[in-house]
Amino acid sequence: MTMLEHIREPRDLKILPGARLDELAEEIRQFLVQAVARTGGHLGPNLGVVELTIALHRVFDSPADRILWDTGHQSYVHKLLTGRQDFSKLRAKGGLSGYPSRAESDHDIIENSHASTVLSWADGLAKANEVRGRSDHVVAVIGDGALTGGMAWEALNNIAAAKDRPLIIVVNDNERSYAPTIGGLANHLATLRTTDGYEKFLSWGKDVLQRTPVVGQPLYESLHGAKKGFKDAFAPQGMFEDLGLKYVGPIVGHDIAAVESALRRAAKFHGPVLVHCLTEKGRGYQPALEDTADRFHTVAKMNPLTCEPVAPPSGPSWTSVFGDEMVRIGAEREDVVALTAAMLQPVGLGRFAAAYPDRIWDVGIAEQHAAVSAAGLATGGLHPVVAVYATFLNRAFDQVLMDVALHKCGVTFVLDRAGVTGVDGASHNGMWDLSVLGVVPGLRIAVPRDAEQLRAQLRESLDVDDAPTVLRFPKESVGEPIPAVERIGGTDVLHRTPQPDVLLIAVGVMAPVCLQVAELLAARGVGTTVVDPRWVKPVDEAVVELAAQHTLVAVVEDNSRNGGIGSAVGQAMRDAEVDVPLRTFGIPEQFLPHARRGELLADLGLTPAEIAGRISGALAARKENPS
Amino acid sequence: MTMLEHIREPRDLKILPGARLDELAEEIRQFLVQAVARTGGHLGPNLGVVELTIALHRVFDSPADRILWDTGHQSYVHKLLTGRQDFSKLRAKGGLSGYPSRAESDHDIIENSHASTVLSWADGLAKANEVRGRSDHVVAVIGDGALTGGMAWEALNNIAAAKDRPLIIVVNDNERSYAPTIGGLANHLATLRTTDGYEKFLSWGKDVLQRTPVVGQPLYESLHGAKKGFKDAFAPQGMFEDLGLKYVGPIVGHDIAAVESALRRAAKFHGPVLVHCLTEKGRGYQPALEDTADRFHTVAKMNPLTCEPVAPPSGPSWTSVFGDEMVRIGAEREDVVALTAAMLQPVGLGRFAAAYPDRIWDVGIAEQHAAVSAAGLATGGLHPVVAVYATFLNRAFDQVLMDVALHKCGVTFVLDRAGVTGVDGASHNGMWDLSVLGVVPGLRIAVPRDAEQLRAQLRESLDVDDAPTVLRFPKESVGEPIPAVERIGGTDVLHRTPQPDVLLIAVGVMAPVCLQVAELLAARGVGTTVVDPRWVKPVDEAVVELAAQHTLVAVVEDNSRNGGIGSAVGQAMRDAEVDVPLRTFGIPEQFLPHARRGELLADLGLTPAEIAGRISGALAARKENPS
Repeated sequence: MTMLEHIREPRDLKILPGARLDELAEEIRQFLVQAVARTGGHLGPNLGVVELTIALHRVFDSPADRILWDTGHQSYVHKLLTGRQDFSKLRAKGGLSGYPSRAESDHDIIENSHASTVLSWADGLAKANEVRGRSDHVVAVIGDGALTGGMAWEALNNIAAAKDRPLIIVVNDNERSYAPTIGGLANHLATLRTTDGYEKFLSWGKDVLQRTPVVGQPLYESLHGAKKGFKDAFAPQGMFEDLGLKYVGPIVGHDIAAVESALRRAAKFHGPVLVHCLTEKGRGYQPALEDTADRFHTVAKMNPLTCEPVAPPSGPSWTSVFGDEMVRIGAEREDVVALTAAMLQPVGLGRFAAAYPDRIWDVGIAEQHAAVSAAGLATGGLHPVVAVYATFLNRAFDQVLMDVALHKCGVTFVLDRAGVTGVDGASHNGMWDLSVLGVVPGLRIAVPRDAEQLRAQLRESLDVDDAPTVLRFPKESVGEPIPAVERIGGTDVLHRTPQPDVLLIAVGVMAPVCLQVAELLAARGVGTTVVDPRWVKPVDEAVVELAAQHTLVAVVEDNSRNGGIGSAVGQAMRDAEVDVPLRTFGIPEQFLPHARRGELLADLGLTPAEIAGRISGALAARKENPS
Repeated sequence: MTMLEHIREPRDLKILPGARLDELAEEIRQFLVQAVARTGGHLGPNLGVVELTIALHRVFDSPADRILWDTGHQSYVHKLLTGRQDFSKLRAKGGLSGYPSRAESDHDIIENSHASTVLSWADGLAKANEVRGRSDHVVAVIGDGALTGGMAWEALNNIAAAKDRPLIIVVNDNERSYAPTIGGLANHLATLRTTDGYEKFLSWGKDVLQRTPVVGQPLYESLHGAKKGFKDAFAPQGMFEDLGLKYVGPIVGHDIAAVESALRRAAKFHGPVLVHCLTEKGRGYQPALEDTADRFHTVAKMNPLTCEPVAPPSGPSWTSVFGDEMVRIGAEREDVVALTAAMLQPVGLGRFAAAYPDRIWDVGIAEQHAAVSAAGLATGGLHPVVAVYATFLNRAFDQVLMDVALHKCGVTFVLDRAGVTGVDGASHNGMWDLSVLGVVPGLRIAVPRDAEQLRAQLRESLDVDDAPTVLRFPKESVGEPIPAVERIGGTDVLHRTPQPDVLLIAVGVMAPVCLQVAELLAARGVGTTVVDPRWVKPVDEAVVELAAQHTLVAVVEDNSRNGGIGSAVGQAMRDAEVDVPLRTFGIPEQFLPHARRGELLADLGLTPAEIAGRISGALAARKENPS
């Protein structure tokens, strides 16, 4: 039995002798590489916080003390130390979540995997403690990358205002989020890191890692803490102290004794403290350290020795089709520029960046700034393409509405990972974008059904210079081309039987599903027209005219049914006084558990058989009881 | 003819001798007080930026150089200096907008009145200049209050990263947004203000204001600029320099020569510069200076000498009904706490704050932080009430969804100024909240129709501890009580004729409109049932059951028709296979121009006569051509 297996809860960790902690850390790293290689998941971030997590659970008493993880993809070690060591079904249906999960453990609090929220959570919990007269600790762990997000600033401003409300902020500074952290803050952190104090720490830290730590009387304390107060023991504090936060650091985050000591001191301080820990993403796993792009931020199932994927992708991804077309467009049009929010590679803009380095900006985890600076770029005579994951554009709804759309700016938003993404759980699904963006006056939305449409619609969007446009596509590999038999207005007819009863409106990748529904209905003697409106907002007049020629209309989308394209089609039909019955197939009003996309779609009834069955039922009911 | 009347464009200003500028400033102040007293509008902010605006237009060449105003309510002086001096219909239909307006002038760029966006606009415009090889200046004016918003931080982080891309940030520091600015940043700005350097400036500035400025050789330059570089001439720079921004200041913002000099120096610097100007909100108008709550941020039509309102409100406001009930609730429940985003008085929480100072927090212009810290407070065992203007909660959509709702937190959001607010123009209308919040799983929305319902539904919301709730109400005075004749499920029946044809579903304040529609229809022989569902999301089953018993269903709301309550009712009817024709009356997909609420509702066809006419038409068409 390994040392790790003996740890069932944080109490077991607290009684371990300090001298054995590095050995435990090594066991955890072995476990992580083996386990994550088997299932896929977040690897680099977790390898970076092994010692930090051990120290946190030795110093604090979770769950009474609240240990809060920003973004949550670095909580695997925390799971291992709080009774969750079966990683065999990590991120799979019924298995452990890839993020903290309140259903799994009382030690988990924040399930949202969007970055930069933790300081606000911590501020609320600390205020609640104050109102209720409780003295439990609140500890927020946030990456330096997440500090580039505006929410973190709003929270720092509030936290710093209360000089006597205890709250501990641990900055897990690995100089990167997905990719290296950018901006003025990163430069400031770099200054903090490269002071004399830090250099001394670093060389000292390296020594410590090669010797047996002296526990009970950590070297760290004797060297730095005893004789000096917080304020003077460390490097210049700069902006955090300017704001009114006590600054402690920088600390070598892989030196457990040093981190423990800093945390114990922070816990004694009756006010907000920022503990600056330096860590290395991917630490201890050479292939990760060599991956300079993102240090194995997320890995697919792979051989842990060779890092070869177990199941290579079945074809080009939507992301790569987009990225390749952007490179071609960049050569043709000098006015096209690109923006991304700390996700250059994941959204496929790496090659564009290499080819046109003066026409692309990574703004950090700052979707609001991405949207509004795009409005500025458009007003300045360029056409920006803002590429982000669908779920993250929710952060910039107000800015898309009030800055981009109100000012009629020609900005193209490209939403990758739209629809049901699955294994990353509730907060990674891009299932509200069509609803939320659908209310924005003048905004046009395209949902390509195949690679050819993606390329064509991207170019169409670049010709719109007086309104924002949105393209959305899923995480999957792009499927086979789906030819149109006819185009009516802006709408492609994909299939048509003589004298059809049902108009099937397919949104993007639901086109193949709708074609299968048509087949199933044909077998039951029901004729269909299957259309892809291509631009789903505003609703094409041709769609409404077609609707009037059918007995039943059905819209199929992998977006929330609330306010989605089905809802928009309903509105357009009502406006035209077309009262043909409508059925909308999409995601009901709920958050989705983690599971594979296919499993979730099946659970939601978004399968050809289920859709065909419900349409048949509606037609039968209508024949029995026509209104 | 006054000096002001001679200024038709910024060029006219540039040729004025410096010695006459203080006289011009005085003329402008007289004009502002008289003009705004006549029409109502933003007074205090504009009185504070008279000299700053004069200096900006003398130093820069607008519109080639871009002068950008954050929030835009302080742009009256800018309007006066750029050819717009007819303030007789300020904020009225067909008159000048209360904000910058591209339709009015090439000198205007940002129309969005939501705070903290200007630095992102400026970053985009500066990048566009760089890509296009242009050397025009980009100047962003932002208040210290707006710096508390997260977007401003995201932008600073990006702006500071490009050391050689010119961009001038003017911080208009009046120590307040609506109310005094809060937080760590405010403390830091206070430190900058109170250094020796600043004290010297201030006393010197006061002298300058009492003498005739020496133009051509400003005293300021000879005293400070000539011998010293930027960095050393002023007070400690603190966090802005830490981020990598050149800091200039603090400058007395009412000393035109000093501001001009600082701006000219900033304009010569080839990189991002922050010019810190100290101004006084309400300057030169004693009643404003004495109003410590918000220094006449906005005034209604008034007598400029007595400050008595010309048309006192016709009854209590929705805001005051809410505020009074919160004071009562605060006495009964110790777990109820309140949050607001730089708007303590405008949202009616002033008395709650006075009574329970330990249970209320003003978080600054930081709606994201308000929402997420509320999630933390709820998780910590309290029930937070977050009160903001409806339009501003759009800033926190992602946080309401991913932090509050996903975590099933019992948080009550109170949306004041919901629906069509009118005179403040496109970006102040709260016309998307029902659509956007309507997609959030588990969230419940109440739209009270009168004061009694507001009080009751506020209390109902406080009993929901496993989901977010939303209450929304308009800016107007609250109307007469509207009694129910019956309650079915959760739905109040307000009116019912025997054998009714039409079900009228009234959302909140549209109840009186619907009752008038019912009267008009009755005169045409059409029977109606008028209901108020009270909680409009999720849709009450009773509403769907009632719908099935009528020939036509109509929903009336003052929200966007895209994804609003009409859309939600349509979805609920489809789910129950109730295919009764539906008509939805609300705001079409457009941004609204500034005008009074009543004028806009009439223009949009949201009047009893228009609605009744369209319902009659739909019924007639249906009789002719039943499906």
